[in-house]
Amino acid sequence: MKQPIGIFDSGVGGLTVYKAIKRAFPAENIIYFGDTARVPYGPKSENTIIEYSIQNARFLLQKDIKILVVACNTSSAVALQELEKLTDIPIIGVIKPGSKLATDSTHNNHIGVIGTEGTIRSEAYNKAIKSILPEAEIFSCACPLFVPLVEEGWLNHPVSRIVAEEYLNFFKDKEIDTLVLGCTHYPLLKSLIDEIMEHKVKLIDSADAIALHLKTLLPVESSTEPVMDRFYVSDNEAKFSQIAEYILGVQPTPIKRVRLYESWFE
Amino acid sequence: MKQPIGIFDSGVGGLTVYKAIKRAFPAENIIYFGDTARVPYGPKSENTIIEYSIQNARFLLQKDIKILVVACNTSSAVALQELEKLTDIPIIGVIKPGSKLATDSTHNNHIGVIGTEGTIRSEAYNKAIKSILPEAEIFSCACPLFVPLVEEGWLNHPVSRIVAEEYLNFFKDKEIDTLVLGCTHYPLLKSLIDEIMEHKVKLIDSADAIALHLKTLLPVESSTEPVMDRFYVSDNEAKFSQIAEYILGVQPTPIKRVRLYESWFE
Repeated sequence: MKQPIGIFDSGVGGLTVYKAIKRAFPAENIIYFGDTARVPYGPKSENTIIEYSIQNARFLLQKDIKILVVACNTSSAVALQELEKLTDIPIIGVIKPGSKLATDSTHNNHIGVIGTEGTIRSEAYNKAIKSILPEAEIFSCACPLFVPLVEEGWLNHPVSRIVAEEYLNFFKDKEIDTLVLGCTHYPLLKSLIDEIMEHKVKLIDSADAIALHLKTLLPVESSTEPVMDRFYVSDNEAKFSQIAEYILGVQPTPIKRVRLYESWFE
Repeated sequence: MKQPIGIFDSGVGGLTVYKAIKRAFPAENIIYFGDTARVPYGPKSENTIIEYSIQNARFLLQKDIKILVVACNTSSAVALQELEKLTDIPIIGVIKPGSKLATDSTHNNHIGVIGTEGTIRSEAYNKAIKSILPEAEIFSCACPLFVPLVEEGWLNHPVSRIVAEEYLNFFKDKEIDTLVLGCTHYPLLKSLIDEIMEHKVKLIDSADAIALHLKTLLPVESSTEPVMDRFYVSDNEAKFSQIAEYILGVQPTPIKRVRLYESWFE
């Protein structure tokens, strides 16, 4: 059996990345891990995000993966360097591919970024975009309530509209022509965000960006071998399955719950 | 030094319980543990809530506490029986004291309960209230967005009002005269909830309920010994300190971050 691609995310949102990779590489085996017990990562401290990311990466590395994809924007923003110390296989976060796509898209060099508190605080997108396009002007804004609203399933709810209007009002006078959706949950609010931005702004989705980037690293093969994807979560298999069906159109299978050996120490 | 009282919560909200206990028992030493790295517990599965609660209780039991207070409604609703297997010291959850206070308060036996998904799903309040007042009619409703709204600090924000109106609309035709605020975060939305319920409903706060209950177990002493409270969190000491100051009026000290030995297993 072909060595699999490993993907981890803080929860279910990374399935948008899984979906884009699967579409681009139908002959690859993929192992997905969603840390649904400890979601969300966005409000956590840098130390904790790094610890959790290392644990998730180690779990996938045990499965003999050939590439590790960090679908979680917060982990990508904060923990990528530490993860690279664990292994020699390629590790791909969402920040660089998303930044590349944003710089390709912009005409006036005014780029907006939305994400979790952890992602925005890290300034990872700012640094990555500036390294490609030094003259870019970057405007970033944390949207901490977007994740709970998506988890609640309020995708078209009036409350989500008011919250989105409040957050996105920040971009009113910034004249951005490109907006990075810097969190795997945000593509689920894409049409709402698009509407509030009056369809004038190109929205950059991490999932598309990472699948595009992966094509530069991995040949697209057509294989006659049977393909076998596997899904692991740290909690709530049933809830994962339900949201997954919404994202993927089918219920993923098999889904297995993994547990942690844990005890507090000072 | 006197044996301390131990309190744990999924995060910072349990400080409302700490505050009420401190006010009632100023001469007691209190150790508080907030699992800020893994907050919120509300959406997690029963298995995970039990695992996390056991880890938190073990940490406090190592500190030679004489009573364990489970400030988190979700843990109290789901994990109390399992916690009782760990130790012979008294363990107090918020469900029974809150239910007692609610049955004392109601005149028409129509009682409302709001809480997290985990708390409401467990039906712990229903069972506890029925065991005291079998003729009670209980109406319960999960309010999953209240915790993120409080964490975002939107206590008087128009969005919080709309969300609260939407959730509390459920009680419109239920003729309740008493509403249990079944989550440590909710007292921070008390005035908003009171307004939406048109000041016609008695709001039951876990913190008051547990302090009252504790008086039946522990004599109130006046001590000349110096009192020393301690605060432990699993993440974000600075953010904890900030919200704590809002709840307590002063920054608690000392605050120490504890960590977990963790590795995934199947």
